[in-house]
Amino acid sequence: MLFSNITIIDEHFHAVENMYVGIDGQTITYISKEAPQKAFGRVYDGKGKLLMSGFYNTHAHSPMTLMRGYGENLVLQDWLNKKIFPFEAQLDGNAVYWATLLAMAESIRFGIVSTTDMYYFSEDMVRAVIESGAKNNISRSITCFDDSNLFDLVGAKEMKALYENHHNDADGRVKVDMSIHAEYTSTPKIVRQMADYAKSIGAGMHVHLSETKSEHEECKQRHQMTPAAYFYKLGLFDTPTTAAHCVWVEGDDFHILKEKAVTVASNPVSNMKLASGVCNVPKLLDMGINVSLGTDSVASNNSLNFIEEMKYLATAAKEKLGDPTAVTPKQALYAATRAGALSQGRTDSGLLKEGYKADLIVLDISGPHMHPVHDLCNNVVYSASGSDVLMTMADGKILYENGRHFTIDVEKTIYEATRATKQILKAL
Amino acid sequence: MLFSNITIIDEHFHAVENMYVGIDGQTITYISKEAPQKAFGRVYDGKGKLLMSGFYNTHAHSPMTLMRGYGENLVLQDWLNKKIFPFEAQLDGNAVYWATLLAMAESIRFGIVSTTDMYYFSEDMVRAVIESGAKNNISRSITCFDDSNLFDLVGAKEMKALYENHHNDADGRVKVDMSIHAEYTSTPKIVRQMADYAKSIGAGMHVHLSETKSEHEECKQRHQMTPAAYFYKLGLFDTPTTAAHCVWVEGDDFHILKEKAVTVASNPVSNMKLASGVCNVPKLLDMGINVSLGTDSVASNNSLNFIEEMKYLATAAKEKLGDPTAVTPKQALYAATRAGALSQGRTDSGLLKEGYKADLIVLDISGPHMHPVHDLCNNVVYSASGSDVLMTMADGKILYENGRHFTIDVEKTIYEATRATKQILKAL
Repeated sequence: MLFSNITIIDEHFHAVENMYVGIDGQTITYISKEAPQKAFGRVYDGKGKLLMSGFYNTHAHSPMTLMRGYGENLVLQDWLNKKIFPFEAQLDGNAVYWATLLAMAESIRFGIVSTTDMYYFSEDMVRAVIESGAKNNISRSITCFDDSNLFDLVGAKEMKALYENHHNDADGRVKVDMSIHAEYTSTPKIVRQMADYAKSIGAGMHVHLSETKSEHEECKQRHQMTPAAYFYKLGLFDTPTTAAHCVWVEGDDFHILKEKAVTVASNPVSNMKLASGVCNVPKLLDMGINVSLGTDSVASNNSLNFIEEMKYLATAAKEKLGDPTAVTPKQALYAATRAGALSQGRTDSGLLKEGYKADLIVLDISGPHMHPVHDLCNNVVYSASGSDVLMTMADGKILYENGRHFTIDVEKTIYEATRATKQILKAL
Repeated sequence: MLFSNITIIDEHFHAVENMYVGIDGQTITYISKEAPQKAFGRVYDGKGKLLMSGFYNTHAHSPMTLMRGYGENLVLQDWLNKKIFPFEAQLDGNAVYWATLLAMAESIRFGIVSTTDMYYFSEDMVRAVIESGAKNNISRSITCFDDSNLFDLVGAKEMKALYENHHNDADGRVKVDMSIHAEYTSTPKIVRQMADYAKSIGAGMHVHLSETKSEHEECKQRHQMTPAAYFYKLGLFDTPTTAAHCVWVEGDDFHILKEKAVTVASNPVSNMKLASGVCNVPKLLDMGINVSLGTDSVASNNSLNFIEEMKYLATAAKEKLGDPTAVTPKQALYAATRAGALSQGRTDSGLLKEGYKADLIVLDISGPHMHPVHDLCNNVVYSASGSDVLMTMADGKILYENGRHFTIDVEKTIYEATRATKQILKAL
């Protein structure tokens, strides 16, 4: 496939007009001002359109789509105890399969090519992800509240099987990460055993870190150290880690994240909506820490609209620091693309660059809200609307174009996800 | 026109499925579960669609569209002095006309039917607004830095002429308000004379109030009172007033706003992006103050995406107060619709109700991001994307449908607005 006469955001995050971009199989093989000599198959007319890297969503709980808009306007404990936990207790593999497929349909519609997911019923999630054509770093998250060893836990056995059966499935679209849910839902023994196991197999790690003030402060009471220091001491960060939220990290925590090359997955919409706080992204960026972007679940977002998420990343930081220079549009674009790909171990992804994976999106930039153009990157982050995504492609395969999904029967998925939701509500 | 089998958000902000809504001329005349006996002309199939009130944007500077994405990542003083003021100094009537038309094209595309505008070159703005089919409460804002009387000022003469020539133009689509720009850009004499004049002609008032901390604190230094107390004392609020921002109002200010029935136009995106702060919307609502929603200019937003603005209104308040129960989706919907219509003196507008003006929008609610539906109002505020607007209608006239503008030549408008922008940049 050849994109012709199209504007691109290049690997340096500059907008360049009138480009040719050729795709061979899964890979971007041609980027030039000149038309190529060879044929690339279908020619796509790029007039009024922007071609850029797809988005990498580095913190999500896809099956929670069924809880979109369920339990609004509640304090955190009521939301969890009266709404989310009882609903989750009724989930089964069928519900998780359709919920994940619905999340993938929405992700693809909003330009997300790959998601770092943390949940249960992982086999059902893998099935949905593979069908969808999207990519996923999936983890079966571990919680432990007693003196168990890691592989006493059913979840750990599932996690191990998941890794052995599905890591690098579907041509590498599926990767399996390890996951400790959080400090307050685990024991030091489990964390250390998980750290050792992850290191032994070379797997990535996904963890919640200092999302809420109470979680952060209670850890300090319990362990006389912050959650970051706790995980550091137990060796969890010795494996490549993505730490979600990091709203309340402080002092030496920043140095720990830097030293261990931990990626921070910031979730600005969810953090604001749950009133958890705002992550100090500018400080993380100043220290050279890899900051990526996540949606968290739609139960607390309530969408997977990644253009909106970029705008929140930049504006929330400005508001928090009282500094309108905090987080530039280019930093937001980098977080949404390259930083996410790196955190997922997809080193040949997340940039519009020859030799890189063809994980690409086309945006409609012809609308009145995208003009005039002083700097197109500014308009993409601050002025575009999520639904401006016209095409989403992963590994060179078109998953969505102009209102049509090619891998997912959206109508059926909505029907089945709605049916599963109603069955759960009836059982409550 | 008859909308058939459509979901609506009714006057009580409940979503109701399978409704018939009939429009006669400018007015909603039929809302029922039953099909009407009489013919309404075109029948619109409402499957997978939501019909609701259009949006009323109560604080904007439409001609600043030309500065979209111009001067990002600057502190406020540099942004104003190095970018905005020099650019504005080069504006002329032609540039303002095309800029306003571009703003109206974007507004209509995002479901805004009416805008409360504050700027200069008002005759050129009126021309663009009338052509666009949208509604506007327009004001020629007054600044004064010397001992002048009100009608010594060229701006005041323009303002008076504007009122006499255009108030209630185009069947009431255009209303002319009075405007004092702000406390720090006026004198007590001018404010008092403006208050008297506005009262004498029964006009509305539009003013910036306590947007930034420095503006608020410097007023207290200058006058030993807050901006709200200052305007109150000078009689400005004796006329129906919309006060934009109100980020730093404190103490008795809340009682003043309540006593004088001032509408607060909150601009959460712009306030966060400029790092000005977050308006205490929950407290205003608790006191029964009319809180409406504004975009401010796209130079500081950078879009007129009102669905996004609603999400920011609710999430910014939650974050500010550390309370996830602050500002419900229904309160955000009310602010975006009915509260705005009331602040514009459009008492028969802003609700889907028989006898009310047919200022309506249709949203696509068929997408994966709008399912499942626990409460559709939650999904509209938190999950919809700006571009999900399928149709915008003002006074019963369709201005936009399915990608087509019917009153504005968008391609030409973008071309002319871009040309005007380039000419200004060349002159700098």
